[in-house]
Amino acid sequence: MIVIGIDPGSRFTGYGVIKKRGQELEHLASGRINASRAKTFIERLEIIYGGLTSVLGQFPVDQAAVESVFVARNAMSTIKLGQARGVALLALSHAKLELNEYAPTLIKQAVTGRGRASKDTVGQMVRVHLGLRGELAEDAADALAVAICHCQAFDFQRRLE
Amino acid sequence: MIVIGIDPGSRFTGYGVIKKRGQELEHLASGRINASRAKTFIERLEIIYGGLTSVLGQFPVDQAAVESVFVARNAMSTIKLGQARGVALLALSHAKLELNEYAPTLIKQAVTGRGRASKDTVGQMVRVHLGLRGELAEDAADALAVAICHCQAFDFQRRLE
Repeated sequence: MIVIGIDPGSRFTGYGVIKKRGQELEHLASGRINASRAKTFIERLEIIYGGLTSVLGQFPVDQAAVESVFVARNAMSTIKLGQARGVALLALSHAKLELNEYAPTLIKQAVTGRGRASKDTVGQMVRVHLGLRGELAEDAADALAVAICHCQAFDFQRRLE
Repeated sequence: MIVIGIDPGSRFTGYGVIKKRGQELEHLASGRINASRAKTFIERLEIIYGGLTSVLGQFPVDQAAVESVFVARNAMSTIKLGQARGVALLALSHAKLELNEYAPTLIKQAVTGRGRASKDTVGQMVRVHLGLRGELAEDAADALAVAICHCQAFDFQRRLE
């Protein structure tokens, strides 16, 4: 099963693609789509949608996961985030993927064992889960964390069925 | 010149298409895209994007206009509106249209002569501008108002050049 996690943002959109074989997780790709250099906001939306569509075209992704909606510090940031998130979700939907949403605390819990872990701890634990060395951009780490969380939730649900 | 005005919303997205010949404005189409019956939010985004893309396919639209970002009463509504607005703008961009944004007060000023006109007055004056009889859904009237505002701004700019 191949899972994509995304962390949408109006400047940087993180993505992480992992493969799950039984309990094992393999890192396939991760990175961030940089929309910050666009001249207009609408161009940013094109970059986010086009970037994700391109990633989705490279892997036969089976499932998608994203952090559930959170609210930014000010209303203007919230609407910008909303617009970015909207086109990211549309790219998933156009790739025929259903959306799985997880609350930030659940994602941290799944990856680090603690719901209030720091960004650094999340990044470190993502590397441990996937056996990665070297640096990982924060947005990419967050996106991989959502994907890992989804894999755990998937196992959990199967055990319940 | 054919102008589309849109009024994005996470439940109803208004659109209005008008033709400008000199000073004359002709109503070509207007209505609202109803996304409120979708089972999931991502399905709403598909309906909004698909609906607008379909309208844009029916007319050789030259220019697009939308009300500038406003902030809803609560943060959750703001992010939902943002997501809807994001996919609406993407539909315009995919149709190779540039975005013209106008503040709510400017739109009311353009259509009614007063920046603080009521919704009813806006609806009535839209009908007067376009010689329309009968009812007009509020979202459609708002979308037509943005389109009319853009036509006036277009004339104004040409006079300045």
